[in-house]
Amino acid sequence: MAALRPAPEWRIAHWLNTPAPLTVEALRGKAILAVAFQMLCPGCVSHGLPQAQRARAAFAPQDLAVIGLHTVFEHHDAQGTPQALAAFLHEYRIDFPVGIDAPSDEGIPQTMRAYQMQGTPTTILIDCAGKLRLQKFGHLDDLRLGAAIQALIGEIANGARGRAAEGACDEQGCPIPQDSHA
Amino acid sequence: MAALRPAPEWRIAHWLNTPAPLTVEALRGKAILAVAFQMLCPGCVSHGLPQAQRARAAFAPQDLAVIGLHTVFEHHDAQGTPQALAAFLHEYRIDFPVGIDAPSDEGIPQTMRAYQMQGTPTTILIDCAGKLRLQKFGHLDDLRLGAAIQALIGEIANGARGRAAEGACDEQGCPIPQDSHA
Amino acid sequence: MAALRPAPEWRIAHWLNTPAPLTVEALRGKAILAVAFQMLCPGCVSHGLPQAQRARAAFAPQDLAVIGLHTVFEHHDAQGTPQALAAFLHEYRIDFPVGIDAPSDEGIPQTMRAYQMQGTPTTILIDCAGKLRLQKFGHLDDLRLGAAIQALIGEIANGARGRAAEGACDEQGCPIPQDSHA
Amino acid sequence: MAALRPAPEWRIAHWLNTPAPLTVEALRGKAILAVAFQMLCPGCVSHGLPQAQRARAAFAPQDLAVIGLHTVFEHHDAQGTPQALAAFLHEYRIDFPVGIDAPSDEGIPQTMRAYQMQGTPTTILIDCAGKLRLQKFGHLDDLRLGAAIQALIGEIANGARGRAAEGACDEQGCPIPQDSHA
Repeated sequence: MAALRPAPEWRIAHWLNTPAPLTVEALRGKAILAVAFQMLCPGCVSHGLPQAQRARAAFAPQDLAVIGLHTVFEHHDAQGTPQALAAFLHEYRIDFPVGIDAPSDEGIPQTMRAYQMQGTPTTILIDCAGKLRLQKFGHLDDLRLGAAIQALIGEIANGARGRAAEGACDEQGCPIPQDSHA
Repeated sequence: MAALRPAPEWRIAHWLNTPAPLTVEALRGKAILAVAFQMLCPGCVSHGLPQAQRARAAFAPQDLAVIGLHTVFEHHDAQGTPQALAAFLHEYRIDFPVGIDAPSDEGIPQTMRAYQMQGTPTTILIDCAGKLRLQKFGHLDDLRLGAAIQALIGEIANGARGRAAEGACDEQGCPIPQDSHA
Repeated sequence: MAALRPAPEWRIAHWLNTPAPLTVEALRGKAILAVAFQMLCPGCVSHGLPQAQRARAAFAPQDLAVIGLHTVFEHHDAQGTPQALAAFLHEYRIDFPVGIDAPSDEGIPQTMRAYQMQGTPTTILIDCAGKLRLQKFGHLDDLRLGAAIQALIGEIANGARGRAAEGACDEQGCPIPQDSHA
Repeated sequence: MAALRPAPEWRIAHWLNTPAPLTVEALRGKAILAVAFQMLCPGCVSHGLPQAQRARAAFAPQDLAVIGLHTVFEHHDAQGTPQALAAFLHEYRIDFPVGIDAPSDEGIPQTMRAYQMQGTPTTILIDCAGKLRLQKFGHLDDLRLGAAIQALIGEIANGARGRAAEGACDEQGCPIPQDSHA
């Protein structure tokens, strides 16, 4: 069985909604839901971000950290500044921490490249041991996301590291829930 | 900590969409999602039943059984016959097993009474050991339901009986997910 | 230009939500929105009937009569009785008049046959002179329906009969709004 | 009866999606639906702009002109540039003409002030004679908007200027449809 891939560390130019920068490493011990988005991406505004807000309301903060990654790969002038993003977060009442993905010379920002994302929105789940467990471009329904998050939270209670090492997931992430408990 | 309550056995006058009657006892070893509904209940038609169909699609049948309970407590003439229910299930393309709750003299049918349900729709989760783990009248959002189902499926993988005995749930069921892994 | 077709008179076995039977003839002078439905038709429950309720709220009763036609052409046992329909209307809080289309030997009830409807839901608009102006099987969006109703109401104010005689509509009804004011 | 108020001429700093500037005056002869919005206003993104797009699809362009007015009164840095708006229009596939309301020293742009708008989204209807007939801050349902547009289009066919002069509308606009045909 394939070994789980460590989630690449985020490369962030600027954080909003948090007093201090956040890292995958520092969040060890809880599950992480990271949603990569662009403020001018319709699917992010109508689906990805509201879902992240619902997840933040449904799970306890000691179990699940909800993070936004502003991965701007187009329209840099329109959505590339912290001021524009701050106005957006204010109007949409998004108050979870959001990191602005560090730009690179090629247009695709650094975190987006490190995760080999295909676009926005992308939903990412990282387990309590810092392993990448799910990465999905596009829409993921709430039932499956709820199950996938709970699977990671259950590992915390059961002593995560042992279980994660024997997980059914591979580098593509976990096609939860059908395959994660075969 | 309160002991978990065994889920009362269903008392069914007639089954549809299944070649043989189903029992809580016979389904031991998998989680059960049972949705109590009435075919003329608007909230059941718009929320409860579509959610049960989504759950059936999202989870593997060896992990989760999805069951409908037609708990008619009003308009018995209009929705009380197997023919009426069969027409309804056909039109709404509901193909999971549905049991018609056995009528009683008082108007509230027998299974509905045994579970002390408050109305329809009511969402019920039963664990792999036959214990009642969640009972919710009204709307339950998909993220929380997905998490609650996954929590029960995770118990199967981890050896359910031992864990269930130490569960945080009481006779009210489990206010999953916040409280089930404190 | 084709002459407008008179709307066939409804053939009703039983009326609900009205103290006296209603006829196309007796409603002359106002516009009529008639929605043909079956209580076990999912598209009627989710779209056709809620739209009729919205239309009843949006237009003045002296301008627009909203009528339901229960055109049962399948599952006669399940949805064919006045008791079943009354329970349905009660649960869905539909309080506009509903006529049960008179059954015929062939299964398709008489009004449904007279209008040559293709199924349910079917939306019908009749002008203040009793002419059939629009008949649409399936979904009709609110903007277009609102415009089509207003076009008929406008004719009342302007002296309907003269204008209707020169209307662009033919026996297929009016493809309102684009074509009705060419 | 109160005289109808002429719709104030738009004061636009920059137009997008049109080869030449547009004016209320130049659009005489057709009805105008103008939607005032801000690109970072959630209610505009989820309701006002999609509704304008639906209206553009439902009515013939010779009858109804659909116009956006970008009335930025907050977050000027984030949404105040033509580049930011152009990116937004591109991503949301809005292809009707949009004018950027001319800024003023007080923060509220000039057209917004001239119309005394209360916020965004604001829906505005102007008749074929250039009179302001409806102005609504917030949500307006599709049935009522469809009826209100059709009422104006009907006036065109009937010789608008004469009728408009005797209209039931006052400076608050027309509470269509109930009041416009009393």
